Amino acid sequence: MLTNRVNRTIEWGDCDPAGIVFYPRYFAFFDDATGQLFAAAGFPKYEMTQRFDIVGIPMVDTRSKFYIPSRYGDEVVIESTVTEFRRSSFDVTHRLYKGEALAVEGFETRVWVRSAPERPGGIQAQAIPEEVLGAFAG
Amino acid sequence: MLTNRVNRTIEWGDCDPAGIVFYPRYFAFFDDATGQLFAAAGFPKYEMTQRFDIVGIPMVDTRSKFYIPSRYGDEVVIESTVTEFRRSSFDVTHRLYKGEALAVEGFETRVWVRSAPERPGGIQAQAIPEEVLGAFAG
Amino acid sequence: MLTNRVNRTIEWGDCDPAGIVFYPRYFAFFDDATGQLFAAAGFPKYEMTQRFDIVGIPMVDTRSKFYIPSRYGDEVVIESTVTEFRRSSFDVTHRLYKGEALAVEGFETRVWVRSAPERPGGIQAQAIPEEVLGAFAG
Amino acid sequence: MLTNRVNRTIEWGDCDPAGIVFYPRYFAFFDDATGQLFAAAGFPKYEMTQRFDIVGIPMVDTRSKFYIPSRYGDEVVIESTVTEFRRSSFDVTHRLYKGEALAVEGFETRVWVRSAPERPGGIQAQAIPEEVLGAFAG
Repeated sequence: MLTNRVNRTIEWGDCDPAGIVFYPRYFAFFDDATGQLFAAAGFPKYEMTQRFDIVGIPMVDTRSKFYIPSRYGDEVVIESTVTEFRRSSFDVTHRLYKGEALAVEGFETRVWVRSAPERPGGIQAQAIPEEVLGAFAG
Repeated sequence: MLTNRVNRTIEWGDCDPAGIVFYPRYFAFFDDATGQLFAAAGFPKYEMTQRFDIVGIPMVDTRSKFYIPSRYGDEVVIESTVTEFRRSSFDVTHRLYKGEALAVEGFETRVWVRSAPERPGGIQAQAIPEEVLGAFAG
Repeated sequence: MLTNRVNRTIEWGDCDPAGIVFYPRYFAFFDDATGQLFAAAGFPKYEMTQRFDIVGIPMVDTRSKFYIPSRYGDEVVIESTVTEFRRSSFDVTHRLYKGEALAVEGFETRVWVRSAPERPGGIQAQAIPEEVLGAFAG
Repeated sequence: MLTNRVNRTIEWGDCDPAGIVFYPRYFAFFDDATGQLFAAAGFPKYEMTQRFDIVGIPMVDTRSKFYIPSRYGDEVVIESTVTEFRRSSFDVTHRLYKGEALAVEGFETRVWVRSAPERPGGIQAQAIPEEVLGAFAG
């Protein structure tokens, strides 16, 4: 399965009074990493939504485990991969490393959704296209 | 001129490793305070954009001066007022107080804009309606 | 078990281009709600760390499930409670409501830690004081 | 005078419901760019504070002007330079470009401060060392 790596340097504004990354920021890092994973597969977000006529891939369930804190100026690497595709939903795992050490893990379940024409503003799950599955398997 | 007051308690995630509010957060506080000022005048953001067929009131120039830092748990008050209305732009001033002390000042210049039908995605300045001017003068 | 309720109005800066709350912000909301839960139990963060000579209650594992999106101006209520105290760690559950509807759930596992005198910068888990357990059970 | 350039890709979480960068984020970008400018001059933040026994270089006054909005996925370049050094304060200017176009300008006044030994928690302005001035002039 396709794996993508993103480098990131911790910013002052990412950190809290304890001097370490304020953990909600890791979820923002991982959200960005998922976007970069799909871009690496050939599907940048805006192009993907237009091409497949979807609203997006909203998050329904996400979890992180924190093993080692990071501080201002630390350089980290985020390794992202889709761990499972189901009919209309999928799981992404992120591993954030400080050097060799696994510092944070992130888990996401997202859904492939298009707008529901019969309900204004409504959305509905949709089968993930073969073309997308193929690009990640490649 | 109408003045609005907003109470706010400083959150852990608003603060940086120096233990004080990360100053970009003050701009977010002030942006919210401007929204609440217009709501107090009778124009909540979404209703205002629909009623006057505008795109919004985007910021073109903003400045803040920082006199006293604030910390996690501090209770502050933000006092907001429009200091000048021009044809299609206006100035907002925010004063953030810790108790009696003026801790931060914010200055904004925003523009009243509608979409420019002849340019896709374009916007153009528009005269601020009398009704809006009247509500603030009241 | 003590339950605390926090009211919160969604701000423009909490939301993303889809017009809904950017989900990492919910973790910031819940972090603040945990702080307010402990304050309601009689232990504001800074006083608690001094009184019990701890470094804090860092997050080791957190998860959220998203059922209904919220938008700019929405008023939500966050209901927070400790669902389990163990020797040196504990679980917090948050339920964010829009009106009657459960919109987001958050789950946290945090640890009661003091500094480890033999390792500079190190921390170690510590038994949660009876006084704290009693305040929540009360 | 030393000028530093930083590349940055706009993230989904940097943007608001209008689909453009939420302007307080530009201040966070510029804060990071100032840190990188000092690092480029040979003074990474933590080393600088230790070496010169200062508390930091807190912001006292900052302003931004917004000419062109940026959106998710846009790649921008921030060009930063110190425009004036005074005895104990200095001005930084940031220019954020989208391609050839100047999109945002930022202006900062910061102060070189050490702790004031006679007042617990207090700080006082201090003359900027010749070594720092020399590194930027170089």
